[in-house]
Amino acid sequence: MSVPNTQHRVVVAAFPDGIPQPTDFRVEEALVPDAEAGEVLVRVIDLSLDPYLRSVLSGRHIGHTRPEIGALMPGRATAEVVRSDDATLPVGSHVVAETGWQQYAAVPRASLRRVDRSDAPLSTALGILGMPGLTAWAGITQRMSLHRGKTFVVSAAIGGVGSTAGQLARVHGCRVIGIAGGAQKCALAVSHFGFDACIDYRDNDWETRLHDATPSGIDAYFDNTGGRILEGVLRQLVVGGEIVLCGLIDQYNTGVPYALPLAPVIGKRATLRGLVVYDFESQYPEYLAFAAPLVRNEQLRYLEDRSNGLTSAPLAFHRLMSGQNIGKAIVAVGEP
Amino acid sequence: MSVPNTQHRVVVAAFPDGIPQPTDFRVEEALVPDAEAGEVLVRVIDLSLDPYLRSVLSGRHIGHTRPEIGALMPGRATAEVVRSDDATLPVGSHVVAETGWQQYAAVPRASLRRVDRSDAPLSTALGILGMPGLTAWAGITQRMSLHRGKTFVVSAAIGGVGSTAGQLARVHGCRVIGIAGGAQKCALAVSHFGFDACIDYRDNDWETRLHDATPSGIDAYFDNTGGRILEGVLRQLVVGGEIVLCGLIDQYNTGVPYALPLAPVIGKRATLRGLVVYDFESQYPEYLAFAAPLVRNEQLRYLEDRSNGLTSAPLAFHRLMSGQNIGKAIVAVGEP
Repeated sequence: MSVPNTQHRVVVAAFPDGIPQPTDFRVEEALVPDAEAGEVLVRVIDLSLDPYLRSVLSGRHIGHTRPEIGALMPGRATAEVVRSDDATLPVGSHVVAETGWQQYAAVPRASLRRVDRSDAPLSTALGILGMPGLTAWAGITQRMSLHRGKTFVVSAAIGGVGSTAGQLARVHGCRVIGIAGGAQKCALAVSHFGFDACIDYRDNDWETRLHDATPSGIDAYFDNTGGRILEGVLRQLVVGGEIVLCGLIDQYNTGVPYALPLAPVIGKRATLRGLVVYDFESQYPEYLAFAAPLVRNEQLRYLEDRSNGLTSAPLAFHRLMSGQNIGKAIVAVGEP
Repeated sequence: MSVPNTQHRVVVAAFPDGIPQPTDFRVEEALVPDAEAGEVLVRVIDLSLDPYLRSVLSGRHIGHTRPEIGALMPGRATAEVVRSDDATLPVGSHVVAETGWQQYAAVPRASLRRVDRSDAPLSTALGILGMPGLTAWAGITQRMSLHRGKTFVVSAAIGGVGSTAGQLARVHGCRVIGIAGGAQKCALAVSHFGFDACIDYRDNDWETRLHDATPSGIDAYFDNTGGRILEGVLRQLVVGGEIVLCGLIDQYNTGVPYALPLAPVIGKRATLRGLVVYDFESQYPEYLAFAAPLVRNEQLRYLEDRSNGLTSAPLAFHRLMSGQNIGKAIVAVGEP
């Protein structure tokens, strides 16, 4: 495939105040970069949009520096190698790479994860077979002690992390209740992902509904949001229940550090554990070997919210951070 | 010993606003109550003052109802049985009982814990061999995974819970750093309790000092306070470190529910566990069998802040809740 001289890329036009707006980004024409020593040139296929990018834009995300105004928006993508002097990574190979929001990227070979397309559709390497899936698996298997018959709750229930976490909890024999925003998402949690129930936190009486759906209390909670959802679940937690703290979606937008009242944590003798997926990267092959067959035979399902073309990324990110996406947010940048 | 007809008792005159003041209480003359069926009459020897009583006065403490204005102030004490029709609990027996702040109390037999005075001085049944000691032991042995060479930190370091927790962590081979208010308390943490160091949180640069005292980070933290002390320790926690949440002394006075920013908890991959001592009452005999010999041979030490006479209780409670006590706060009410 011939490589053009110029491409489109998306740069940060302004640091978002609250929910990111499309106007916080700008599409530019730029040169396709040259691959330097130790790098290969890749062509972006699917760009992954993830809530953590919002905290990167606030300069708050572990292991990521905040981009300058005018600089390339960071992000992860599936891509095809188009120029390479490395025989172990030939042209035509498929990888996951930190490409940023652009069509072509020169990326360090050492940073790439090779993807076997026979495992599953390529885009799953960004979702259920990628970092979101690994996050869910690490939380469920390494940071919780789930047993058959326990009641498990997860927020952001049909997102990449939440939907996988809920399905894995079902594999462990748990009763699984999701929490999501809106009737459509809640219906999908049940119909598509097989959750036992899903509560719409936008309902005024969502706590009553959660209570009714978990009559013997909540044994384990996988929290992706913080805020009033976490506090409401804590009220319904059993004494001695456990919570994995995985994300703070509310805080990502507001910028106000979310703080959890501690008296109920003591009162519930709760155990809270922080989860950062980067700690589990070495266990990715183990996760992939476990999950890829289940994805192929649809025992583990996923849902993608696809938008078309790099220029749609700013609006798609706005939709993601305002909870309008249905499933893992992906921008189709180039031919598969 | 003859029992008088009247006695003194302390009632709640007003619900405290902030730190309890002596004027929030009133000393009254009252009748010595009659023991009814299932009760014995006890004479109070030493009254225990504990921070949890502050949250009882706010109506916030697990398992305790808030006393009415004009009602007896609740509290726990060592006492001697002076009237009993129960041959298994004869006159002259020593017990720990929920007597309230008075000289004589009629208490349900089933609620009493018999104390063997040959174990150690009677007042230790309120401190290191009582609920504070059991709290410390439960936190250290049941809610943490301490190992030789780890760095352990405890706040309210020379209080009943904190001083015992620090000594037990040393028994586990940990390096032990206390946090306390004032130079005198810090000196005692080292000289009397054998801590490796103690940081005065009233120093402006206490966090720097804590950092210098824990050069490889804090592995485990026993929190009795919440607030800025917890947040400062969290900043110095190792990745994957653990915290037992045992008390919220700050909040007890302010009445403002303390909330902990969660992003640092995730960033540190911390594990937080709430501790409530009542869960471990059935393990009290195990704790006593372990700790009593160590107290007798002074491998476990304690420190008491004694004030004399029931009428001194309101001021002593004010001193406790404003951090002026040195050691376990006890009011000597009657002859030992």
